[in-house]
Amino acid sequence: MGYKRFDEKDLEFIYCVIGDHERVLYGENINEEYSHDELSDTVSYPDVVVKVTSTEEVSKIMKYAYDNNIPVTPRGSGTGLVGASVPMEKGIMIDTSLMNHVLELDEENLTITVEPGVLLMELAAYVEEKDFFYPPDPGEKSATIGGNISTNAGGMRAVKYGVTRDYVRGLEVVLPNGTVVNLGGKVVKNSTGYALKDLMIGSEGTLGIITKATLKLLPLPKKAISLLIPFPSLERAIRTVPLIVKSKSIPTAIEFMQREVILDAEKYLGRKFPDSSADAYLLLKFDGNSTEEIENAYDNVAKICLEQGALDIFISDTSEREESIWKARGAFLEAIKGSTTYMDEVDVVVPRNRVNDMVEYIHNLYKEVDVRIKSFGHAGDGNLHAYILRDNLSEEEWNKKMKDAMEKIYGKARELEGQVSGEHGVGYAKKEYLLKSMDPALIEIMAGIKKAFDPKNILNPHKIFQE
Amino acid sequence: MGYKRFDEKDLEFIYCVIGDHERVLYGENINEEYSHDELSDTVSYPDVVVKVTSTEEVSKIMKYAYDNNIPVTPRGSGTGLVGASVPMEKGIMIDTSLMNHVLELDEENLTITVEPGVLLMELAAYVEEKDFFYPPDPGEKSATIGGNISTNAGGMRAVKYGVTRDYVRGLEVVLPNGTVVNLGGKVVKNSTGYALKDLMIGSEGTLGIITKATLKLLPLPKKAISLLIPFPSLERAIRTVPLIVKSKSIPTAIEFMQREVILDAEKYLGRKFPDSSADAYLLLKFDGNSTEEIENAYDNVAKICLEQGALDIFISDTSEREESIWKARGAFLEAIKGSTTYMDEVDVVVPRNRVNDMVEYIHNLYKEVDVRIKSFGHAGDGNLHAYILRDNLSEEEWNKKMKDAMEKIYGKARELEGQVSGEHGVGYAKKEYLLKSMDPALIEIMAGIKKAFDPKNILNPHKIFQE
Repeated sequence: MGYKRFDEKDLEFIYCVIGDHERVLYGENINEEYSHDELSDTVSYPDVVVKVTSTEEVSKIMKYAYDNNIPVTPRGSGTGLVGASVPMEKGIMIDTSLMNHVLELDEENLTITVEPGVLLMELAAYVEEKDFFYPPDPGEKSATIGGNISTNAGGMRAVKYGVTRDYVRGLEVVLPNGTVVNLGGKVVKNSTGYALKDLMIGSEGTLGIITKATLKLLPLPKKAISLLIPFPSLERAIRTVPLIVKSKSIPTAIEFMQREVILDAEKYLGRKFPDSSADAYLLLKFDGNSTEEIENAYDNVAKICLEQGALDIFISDTSEREESIWKARGAFLEAIKGSTTYMDEVDVVVPRNRVNDMVEYIHNLYKEVDVRIKSFGHAGDGNLHAYILRDNLSEEEWNKKMKDAMEKIYGKARELEGQVSGEHGVGYAKKEYLLKSMDPALIEIMAGIKKAFDPKNILNPHKIFQE
Repeated sequence: MGYKRFDEKDLEFIYCVIGDHERVLYGENINEEYSHDELSDTVSYPDVVVKVTSTEEVSKIMKYAYDNNIPVTPRGSGTGLVGASVPMEKGIMIDTSLMNHVLELDEENLTITVEPGVLLMELAAYVEEKDFFYPPDPGEKSATIGGNISTNAGGMRAVKYGVTRDYVRGLEVVLPNGTVVNLGGKVVKNSTGYALKDLMIGSEGTLGIITKATLKLLPLPKKAISLLIPFPSLERAIRTVPLIVKSKSIPTAIEFMQREVILDAEKYLGRKFPDSSADAYLLLKFDGNSTEEIENAYDNVAKICLEQGALDIFISDTSEREESIWKARGAFLEAIKGSTTYMDEVDVVVPRNRVNDMVEYIHNLYKEVDVRIKSFGHAGDGNLHAYILRDNLSEEEWNKKMKDAMEKIYGKARELEGQVSGEHGVGYAKKEYLLKSMDPALIEIMAGIKKAFDPKNILNPHKIFQE
């Protein structure tokens, strides 16, 4: 690509910008964690890691990198699953994790303004203490908000509340040439020019570096009740979901899970799940401002589930039980990871009434490919997570089977009018599947957009769709 | 710009694509209405109007225009206010109003798929009859859905439900070179590549022609109650709004209005408004699934209003009264228009807690500029509509005063961290104000995006930000 190789002179400039040299890691001082993310086997070290603390620092470094043609990769807490934050061309890594301050809670506009390194769990705790609610709820609570915005993270409450995109009102962004711009703001409506704020959301750090975000808040619902519903089979459970959607009750979440994943989670957390006797479960959550309101909503859904063969309805109406169920649900990824030697994942999303087809397909795929696959996911919004487990396979067998399984799953998703990624993004690891599924005319337009933001292609190259 | 002038040979091609020649208007057969929209004094005739009935027709014409360098302007029902659908370079006008079919109501995915020429009022009636709800509610009910998407139209329910953007799941779009692409789909979540669907929304027909839209529906709330609340002064009314927002009750709508606008509406509709004795009013709407739920929500708000000096609380709990109030509200634009010889408007949006500053500024502006200005708007979401009235001013006086007033209002909006347009778009008429308020770095990026979609710049040139 003809990038300039980062050298000692460049380091001098970085030291000059970042007075505190402890915030600059160079060469052998770079921890191994900076060479990869949480899951993908995409591995590459940066030449230097800069732990920035201000927009000004980001802007100065970005301008220098632009002028000198040095690649830059932004990184939050590195919890991604597709290698989006791995510096494929080495160069400078901008670590935003020290930009972790809440800047303003604006109660009159129902917004909160934060730096990008604030963790999702910190944000949630901060606003809930003040009786506000930030609805996006991805499983990985130690992700940064900057990372969540960059992947348009979804999570478990999407059925009722939507995804990260729906809660971003404004962004401060450092463009690849170092210019600092503001997109959106605190305004509720906006029809002023192209939707650049929306374009930035989900662009996986390829168009600009987010240095500030103004997020929309809601009043905290006063009550939440979850229903854990055992079914005799996965098929029965999943087939019930479109009927729930059609019934016009709106749960906050509709998750599905199988016994084997629950057993993994019990083992991982060292505590029992309320029930693990059935083959498959739906886990539903309802929230609202009064018990009556919630009961009205779930009564009808419970009836539908029983009609469809549910074995029981466990109602969790204490916050302890509530927490124990959702904690187990939140641990699924780590629990499955702990049950094998290595794994890779797919994050496909299909229309909600095709979830059953997709889940059944994945469930039976092991017969065809002879590899263990575990899945769980957001039945209510069509977003499924399937994990292909390496176990004791040899390198060669693993690569063959993993690729085979992936191709079959993404192929099926296309057939069902689904998309490659519901919430984890494409990054580096899923690029070939995006290229295979997306109209070449749109790839070309995306390349044109990338060029409009980053004519020298120095910001996070080789990601999403770029060779 | 070096466009090819549309001639008789081009007409032959159009006749060949459109077998039914009654759907092609040429030269003198073009009605005057095609030369302008609902308000702006932007005027220009196309060379030909093609009333398309299918995506295929749009694609063929677009490809021909692209190959031959002929400008194309898409138009719905022409209810815009900023000249976005006026063909500044003449050429071909694509009128989508005959593409007005509902294609599919998908109850399992809670989506409806429509052609772009379906009118907002047709869509609302269609889904409500089936107990579904399409929340976006712009004042102009005879706008097309394609037009609503192209301006990211907002409307009165934005406080609780958001804007058009929040209800578009998928789009079929004909690109400037004639290629037909699909953006998004029926999926609820999507993190697959850049947010091209979101970019298309609000792009005012400059990036592609929308030929199909899949929209998200909600279950229809079972009940709605409105409160009409008279205040002794506009200031008192507006100052109450941030307190309502802060109280964590979420009304569907919070509108403000003044007596003089109500009197205009009474005259225009020939029927009385429930009350017009006070100087200013807030109009609030609450919806939900039971009377109790709604009463719980508005009790507290009513209390706040009375504490802030409200003179009374009129509760409208019958559908007749409800309709009469909102019908009057819906007629404000036309009523004001009828009260003068000519007018122009601003559609600024400011953070919700700055609405008071903005409204007061506009209210007092007549003293400075000596021109009549009327305003009303969406107090709950910060989006204000102010109308500058020509009355008996001479051409010269009008141009001077109108420009002066506009510049002052947009200047104030910038000062309050607002934006040029909340929901009407920028089109042709507000371009200079966008150029004045937006960071040049962002204008340049928008130009790059336009180029990525439309390298020959044949689709709706001179709009939004383009010279």
